[in-house]
Amino acid sequence: MTQLEAAKKGRITPEMEIAAKHEGLAAEEIRKKIAEGVAVIPKNINHDFKNIMAIGKGLKTKINANIGTSGDCPSIEREERKLEVALKYGTDSVMDLSTGGDLNEARLGILEKSTVMVGAVPLYAVAAKMADEDIPTHRMDGEELLKSIDEQCRQGIDYITVHCGVTKESVKRMDASDRVCGIVSRGGSILADWIRKNGKENPLYEYFDELLEIAYKYDVTLSLGDGFRPGSIADATDRPQIDELIILGELSKRAYEKNVQIIIEGPGHVPLDQIETNMKLQKSLCNDAPFYILGPLPTDIAPGYDHITSAVGGAIAASAGADFLCYVTPAEHLCLPDEDDVREGVIASKIAAHIADISKGVKGALQRDIKMSEYRKNLDWEGMFKTSVDPEKARSRFRQNMDINSCTMCGKLCAVKIDQK
Amino acid sequence: MTQLEAAKKGRITPEMEIAAKHEGLAAEEIRKKIAEGVAVIPKNINHDFKNIMAIGKGLKTKINANIGTSGDCPSIEREERKLEVALKYGTDSVMDLSTGGDLNEARLGILEKSTVMVGAVPLYAVAAKMADEDIPTHRMDGEELLKSIDEQCRQGIDYITVHCGVTKESVKRMDASDRVCGIVSRGGSILADWIRKNGKENPLYEYFDELLEIAYKYDVTLSLGDGFRPGSIADATDRPQIDELIILGELSKRAYEKNVQIIIEGPGHVPLDQIETNMKLQKSLCNDAPFYILGPLPTDIAPGYDHITSAVGGAIAASAGADFLCYVTPAEHLCLPDEDDVREGVIASKIAAHIADISKGVKGALQRDIKMSEYRKNLDWEGMFKTSVDPEKARSRFRQNMDINSCTMCGKLCAVKIDQK
Repeated sequence: MTQLEAAKKGRITPEMEIAAKHEGLAAEEIRKKIAEGVAVIPKNINHDFKNIMAIGKGLKTKINANIGTSGDCPSIEREERKLEVALKYGTDSVMDLSTGGDLNEARLGILEKSTVMVGAVPLYAVAAKMADEDIPTHRMDGEELLKSIDEQCRQGIDYITVHCGVTKESVKRMDASDRVCGIVSRGGSILADWIRKNGKENPLYEYFDELLEIAYKYDVTLSLGDGFRPGSIADATDRPQIDELIILGELSKRAYEKNVQIIIEGPGHVPLDQIETNMKLQKSLCNDAPFYILGPLPTDIAPGYDHITSAVGGAIAASAGADFLCYVTPAEHLCLPDEDDVREGVIASKIAAHIADISKGVKGALQRDIKMSEYRKNLDWEGMFKTSVDPEKARSRFRQNMDINSCTMCGKLCAVKIDQK
Repeated sequence: MTQLEAAKKGRITPEMEIAAKHEGLAAEEIRKKIAEGVAVIPKNINHDFKNIMAIGKGLKTKINANIGTSGDCPSIEREERKLEVALKYGTDSVMDLSTGGDLNEARLGILEKSTVMVGAVPLYAVAAKMADEDIPTHRMDGEELLKSIDEQCRQGIDYITVHCGVTKESVKRMDASDRVCGIVSRGGSILADWIRKNGKENPLYEYFDELLEIAYKYDVTLSLGDGFRPGSIADATDRPQIDELIILGELSKRAYEKNVQIIIEGPGHVPLDQIETNMKLQKSLCNDAPFYILGPLPTDIAPGYDHITSAVGGAIAASAGADFLCYVTPAEHLCLPDEDDVREGVIASKIAAHIADISKGVKGALQRDIKMSEYRKNLDWEGMFKTSVDPEKARSRFRQNMDINSCTMCGKLCAVKIDQK
């Protein structure tokens, strides 16, 4: 029985209890949210991990860190080190996006070592194998894709991105559009190319019922991917993007009816003044299903600093209703992230999520800031370090100076000291 | 004649012409904004510098970098290196906040070497001298303070922060409040302490007409400081803060009538959902005078990463009407910034300002993003680097890999390549 099925029947599962504890809420509140489809607990029946969490309305904003090998960087060890860093800095989820080297080994390693939910994009495994063998991805076999999805779900992946909204019709609309950047989603580009060259329907759309059966079997949460997310702020909130969102909304209803948990993925590159609109549209079109966003990036011009750009967009988006933020690292648009990038990406996302949680009035969020401010008022430096997002860094920057009771900025002219007199 | 006086009389000054060019606007448009008091050109008649700019409504959001020695770090050379870094990464203004070592030499050096407007907080020079001599700052002499302000303005400072809104009445209101963090502005804390201990009115308020005369003489722009800015998000938008803003609004009207250019300073630590309200309040209470903000920081818990927190707050604030962003560096709340901090702070602020300019529809802003997206679509890496906020960094991260036509993230599975086929 899936979490959704149990919730609908009024049953509180052990997973709901754990998730509720993390939120400081009653388990019944979590059950109710899941039963309504406004929250999910991504937890495969074949995957054991410690920090089981719910994602959705009124809950703490969660963050995800993407890791995984690439063709140019196939080292699994490197990715496992990145996993450790992501966990150390408090990620709530990781996605294995491996496309290079031994994908099976990478997946099993991450599933074993992760203490948080693990997501994946099963299409990548199929496409990467074909790329390795120099077979064009438009030769992909639909049945084989579904078989690979089943296999990856059986191994324990907690949630999977499936680009079901890329359809014959929606690709036509995309191709008729005057986008600057076209399709920038890897899954979206592969499936659109497949549809165009084969003249057939996207198997993930055509066989959506079979997909639901697989997801139901392992209680895998479906994350309906946005294959047409804008890759340029000039392309944001355009007809192809919103058309796809409508389709995802329809599919989310079908999933809910079949007791399969779902979340919806969202943009992308979006100018600041369109972010709130995008959040409200998703909630309205997708029956308030949890919204999982990449960014959004409110400018295109900051490669090397896109964790900052993304923190801006993510904080605004989450305060307007997004439930789950996929991190963006300083390496975005340039190269595969390294360990430092992962740390910077996780911390920037955690800051954005926390800013939003204060703004949304999520339980307990503001209290941490008040505690920090009280330590500041009392010039209790150790208290400040402990309460901060990265105690090590705060401590080491401060320790550069001598006087324990003031920082090198103000010295004798410290406002807090003067005001205390 | 000040820029404001000239503008009111319908005269276009050479400074307006230079400022207009930077905006891509007609000089007459700049003149009109200055005449209405919704924009200023901070430019002391005794200071020559290259990049003269206007700050205000409908113009590009400007950013400022604070530099300056402290008692613990009195090296002028270090601050001059920080000035170079700030200019290299495109700051539109610097403030000399020196409080350690030879303040006069630091100020003259920065005035000489800066190619952008230079601001200062003249009170600091007086307070630092007293701190050096172990004289409590409440013994400060009002007349001496005004004399020092005159001297610093005569030397060429383009705009000065003066905390005129800290008054006998407003300090009473502050002291009756239940703030978590009290007063966190250095100038604010010194003046409030002075008022409490001497039982007299703040000389910057009492002798505001004399201050206007000094400012008029050199065409120094007055930046009315927010001595009661919240230092904790729990303290944001409270009665002491808004009370001070009302007083600053009254003073800004008096300055405008005396042909003295003014800008208003603003918070501080403000939760995300209160940022827009703060911007609208300032515009309403201060006759649409340009708004110069520090942050705002929408969370208190990120020391070491406050440039990111500030980028979130600054982007939202500027898109809601703030005109001038004071940078916040990763060193904020911990120590005096070093050169790396200055670079990170300037870049984060530039990103925030640009995000806001796109959102506000400032002339030319979106075009840069479209250019970047076109380079991305064409996989023109050199074009991308040149268009980015930090070409060196973007280039060096990308160059870590071999293949000139793809990044190590996607390799053969590049969405842009697949979509181009």
